[in-house]
Amino acid sequence: MKDLTHEQKDTFWDRMDDVRAGMLHTDADRVVPMSHYTDPERGVFWFITADGTDAHKAAVDGKAVHYVVAEAGAKVYARVDGRLTVEDDREKLDELWSPVASAWFEDGKEDDDVRLVKFTPSTAEVWLTDGGAGFLYEIAKANLTDAKPDMGDHGVVRF
Amino acid sequence: MKDLTHEQKDTFWDRMDDVRAGMLHTDADRVVPMSHYTDPERGVFWFITADGTDAHKAAVDGKAVHYVVAEAGAKVYARVDGRLTVEDDREKLDELWSPVASAWFEDGKEDDDVRLVKFTPSTAEVWLTDGGAGFLYEIAKANLTDAKPDMGDHGVVRF
Repeated sequence: MKDLTHEQKDTFWDRMDDVRAGMLHTDADRVVPMSHYTDPERGVFWFITADGTDAHKAAVDGKAVHYVVAEAGAKVYARVDGRLTVEDDREKLDELWSPVASAWFEDGKEDDDVRLVKFTPSTAEVWLTDGGAGFLYEIAKANLTDAKPDMGDHGVVRF
Repeated sequence: MKDLTHEQKDTFWDRMDDVRAGMLHTDADRVVPMSHYTDPERGVFWFITADGTDAHKAAVDGKAVHYVVAEAGAKVYARVDGRLTVEDDREKLDELWSPVASAWFEDGKEDDDVRLVKFTPSTAEVWLTDGGAGFLYEIAKANLTDAKPDMGDHGVVRF
């Protein structure tokens, strides 16, 4: 499978910023929806979660996981492989902290239960679409026949 | 984890109908975006694909797979477990056949490469959201504390 170009990789980061949530596979049998924050400068994603959630437990164990996004409006489908770690980074938490997060944690950022989790991707398989309904057929056709799809791009991103 | 009510199960089917595409896990290492057609009367999903695609190969093998949807606009996140089979059902293909599919297959429905794949779900873990950004926190909180989330529902659907 071909690598995406640098420009396509930038498009991937831009579109990931438009995705509200994806599905984090912390285990062969465990999949949970999570909202991510993109951090293209460091090449990572961030999750804000609480002590004891599946995402937090996987991060404590430093687990290899994969994260899947499939939001038609954001024009990106992806399977991102990487590793979770817990980060005690107050500055980053301040930067990411949102009204949404604050509404949930009773004592705000100072809440003892808040956990900042970093997802460091290694590789991703990415489908960039034109937003139309036909791209999936185009992509499948391209895979089968080596034809170039007209409606989107598909390839690997290495981080 | 609690079972969703009959009403919530109906809501699941309705919302799945609004989802353009999900990510089909045909293998531990293989994830591909696919568009599904809902068939709540039979309790199955349909995929139109071509000979030799990952989805088709998994169906030939009658594989157990899981299918993940994460489309914010459709207000549903789900991991659906089930089995793929190839179905030679001309009537169903006629019913599902769309301008999108016809644009892709050169000889239309008569194209030798067209394959109709049935996905028979066994169970699903489903998150029904109110469309707001806070529901993921609410759901996580409910899981941790047994509180009832205000913004959505989470549970198991058995088919």
